[in-house]
Amino acid sequence: MMKNRVITISREFGSGGRTIGKKVAEELKIPCYDSELLQKIADKTGFNEEYIKDAGEYASGGFLSAAFSHRTAVPTNADYLWKIQYDLITELAKKEPCVIVGRCADYILRDKADCLRVFIHADMAFRAERIVKEYGERDESPEQRLKDKDKRRAAYHRFYTNMKWGYAQNYDITLNSGTLGIGTCVYIIKGLY
Amino acid sequence: MMKNRVITISREFGSGGRTIGKKVAEELKIPCYDSELLQKIADKTGFNEEYIKDAGEYASGGFLSAAFSHRTAVPTNADYLWKIQYDLITELAKKEPCVIVGRCADYILRDKADCLRVFIHADMAFRAERIVKEYGERDESPEQRLKDKDKRRAAYHRFYTNMKWGYAQNYDITLNSGTLGIGTCVYIIKGLY
Repeated sequence: MMKNRVITISREFGSGGRTIGKKVAEELKIPCYDSELLQKIADKTGFNEEYIKDAGEYASGGFLSAAFSHRTAVPTNADYLWKIQYDLITELAKKEPCVIVGRCADYILRDKADCLRVFIHADMAFRAERIVKEYGERDESPEQRLKDKDKRRAAYHRFYTNMKWGYAQNYDITLNSGTLGIGTCVYIIKGLY
Repeated sequence: MMKNRVITISREFGSGGRTIGKKVAEELKIPCYDSELLQKIADKTGFNEEYIKDAGEYASGGFLSAAFSHRTAVPTNADYLWKIQYDLITELAKKEPCVIVGRCADYILRDKADCLRVFIHADMAFRAERIVKEYGERDESPEQRLKDKDKRRAAYHRFYTNMKWGYAQNYDITLNSGTLGIGTCVYIIKGLY
């Protein structure tokens, strides 16, 4: 079977992982799936895109009921979305070389594709400044928003993959975008491809 | 204060981290401290070099009594060595740019020097093959030797630094030497310097 080279990017919220993924894809002239991917999922399921985003990271109701469903074997919406994402990412990686940001793609493709598994992180101060600039002020402090997001991403990742979030051993390379800079991260990943 | 640029390399046993450190230092024409560092410590303390190596990673007796001593505030030999290492690494980083492999140098220099903090890891199979080639066969299986070493390094690191070993957020960059290759790791680190 001919295997495409795929770059998967996991990232902490506010670390610039999505921006890095898009730039790498642009420079390599390959597609980048992120919000586009969500859109595709939405098209497939008929669910609203915002709803899916929430089911992936935010909806603690959905997430918690998913946790129960694993005990009682009744699939929830979150489980259903996971299955659709799983199939879609597998399909995309088969079709052509690409960058996939988030959605546990590293885990989904672990035995199926020739992947470069990347994790992007940065310290609180760097990310706090970035999210205010990118997404604007909120009632909550940026630090609280980051803590909340980190916790939910880690829990989601752990629940569906049983891998430790942010643990170096799960990746080929992890980069601190705060100390190295976003441009350097793009340059290194591109060079490894 | 003029700060020297220092590269600290933490690494899993058998991942080639020490080799990578030496090659980076060689190409950058700066010193690399590892067994040399141990020798310096030995000279200072009058302890035997092998004994010090053991106190750092192997001697569970020393390590456990160190754990007790933190409760009872009686410093053990392991604590004494930690203090000497601490001062020595601080001194070396002040003197000139260098590469320091192991010895929790990343933690020791965290607020004192301009550090590039690197972690090198690789999967079991890659490391097992490497340690047999580098250090020869033993009665224990290479996998058992690796598990034992990993556990002790992580415990030592955790005890003296309270940082999670191998956790991406503690480093500027982590590299999988098994999938990327030792040459590529050298190239990337050198490029970041």
